[in-house]
Amino acid sequence: MIKVVALDADDTLWHSESRFQQTQARLSEILDQYAPHDQVQAHLHELEVRNIKLFGFGIKGFTLSMIEAAIEISQGRITAPEIHEIVMMGKAMLDAPMELLDGVAETVGLLAKDYPLFMITKGDHMDQYNKIGNSGLADHFTQIEVVMNKDVAAYREVFSRHDVNAEQIMMVGNSIPSDILPILELGGHGVYIPYHVTASFERHETEPESPRYRRLSRIQELPALLQKLNGG
Amino acid sequence: MIKVVALDADDTLWHSESRFQQTQARLSEILDQYAPHDQVQAHLHELEVRNIKLFGFGIKGFTLSMIEAAIEISQGRITAPEIHEIVMMGKAMLDAPMELLDGVAETVGLLAKDYPLFMITKGDHMDQYNKIGNSGLADHFTQIEVVMNKDVAAYREVFSRHDVNAEQIMMVGNSIPSDILPILELGGHGVYIPYHVTASFERHETEPESPRYRRLSRIQELPALLQKLNGG
Repeated sequence: MIKVVALDADDTLWHSESRFQQTQARLSEILDQYAPHDQVQAHLHELEVRNIKLFGFGIKGFTLSMIEAAIEISQGRITAPEIHEIVMMGKAMLDAPMELLDGVAETVGLLAKDYPLFMITKGDHMDQYNKIGNSGLADHFTQIEVVMNKDVAAYREVFSRHDVNAEQIMMVGNSIPSDILPILELGGHGVYIPYHVTASFERHETEPESPRYRRLSRIQELPALLQKLNGG
Repeated sequence: MIKVVALDADDTLWHSESRFQQTQARLSEILDQYAPHDQVQAHLHELEVRNIKLFGFGIKGFTLSMIEAAIEISQGRITAPEIHEIVMMGKAMLDAPMELLDGVAETVGLLAKDYPLFMITKGDHMDQYNKIGNSGLADHFTQIEVVMNKDVAAYREVFSRHDVNAEQIMMVGNSIPSDILPILELGGHGVYIPYHVTASFERHETEPESPRYRRLSRIQELPALLQKLNGG
């Protein structure tokens, strides 16, 4: 019996990664004169991974990693105006309008009538709370959690703090490693709804094999799945 | 009767602002060839204020503001290796060792025996939690709150969530606008312990006139003050 529905936010409720990838594409254009596209992407990814412990997830850290990568890739030949454009791209991302995914507003409204809804997301705390505020969805959620890292320990801590059993939770999101594997390990239900692009951090080759795992193509299919699983 | 002691963290429990100011001093050295020191500080401060809505308080946003200011002040003449040094200064700040202020470890340990202690701080969530973790003080605090902005609304929300009356709270910190004025407005007690340098955001010309306001020179004086105010 599923009693609580927990939803990821970035790329599950609203668009996020597509903006990172647009920004990276523009970074590659800027750096085209200094290095090939693939090398730019690889170096940026490598730096992001190296910086994550210091920066955490989020746009400000991503922007600093872009600047660091641009200087390193160009071997110091990138110009100040080009770096200024990178800073401005970061600011534009922070200031970007909120765009919900198709069907999110209706589906979240429907689910909230029948289930306590948790939002469990990671990233920069301030960015995430700004987005939650701008989404118009906050009132539908009984708990909103912005965690540092979506691993088994973080989910266990959240569930125990709110006194819910993982077996009674369905976690819904677009990342197999962050949204699905931890909840399956804890004995709960994982519903994977892929987004059209996936961050390099969140890529995962295979889908899990578990009777508590489902894959949907759209969030609108969630209420029917819940009804089926709960034998309604 | 004071029942809860709430403490600010940066520059009240551990060193923080002195590091920002060391970094700004080095930024001024880098930019000396492009503009006079005063102009650098003024432009950086102006940009920080302008960017605060997007970036919030914290080292990552400060680093991005330094880069933006450096490019603008030098009119695009700053070099990529100089900008790289600014990025590295930001990373060094994020990675700096925790240094408690004199007397903090003993005093917090003492206070925790007699009072529930709240830590109320602002800044980047991840940076602050890393610092709290590294401080060795976390176990002494019954509540730890990292807020976006330390204004009356934020304090009211924290106190109401934890079901405590502002009149029974003593808030201790090094910033008159962030730590003292809001608690006095809410009817609580404010104890100002100045740090040797003050961030431009936190400067305040006059001390408040209120019977619920005190100024101490060192945190070690806090237990005796509490005993006196509580008639012990």
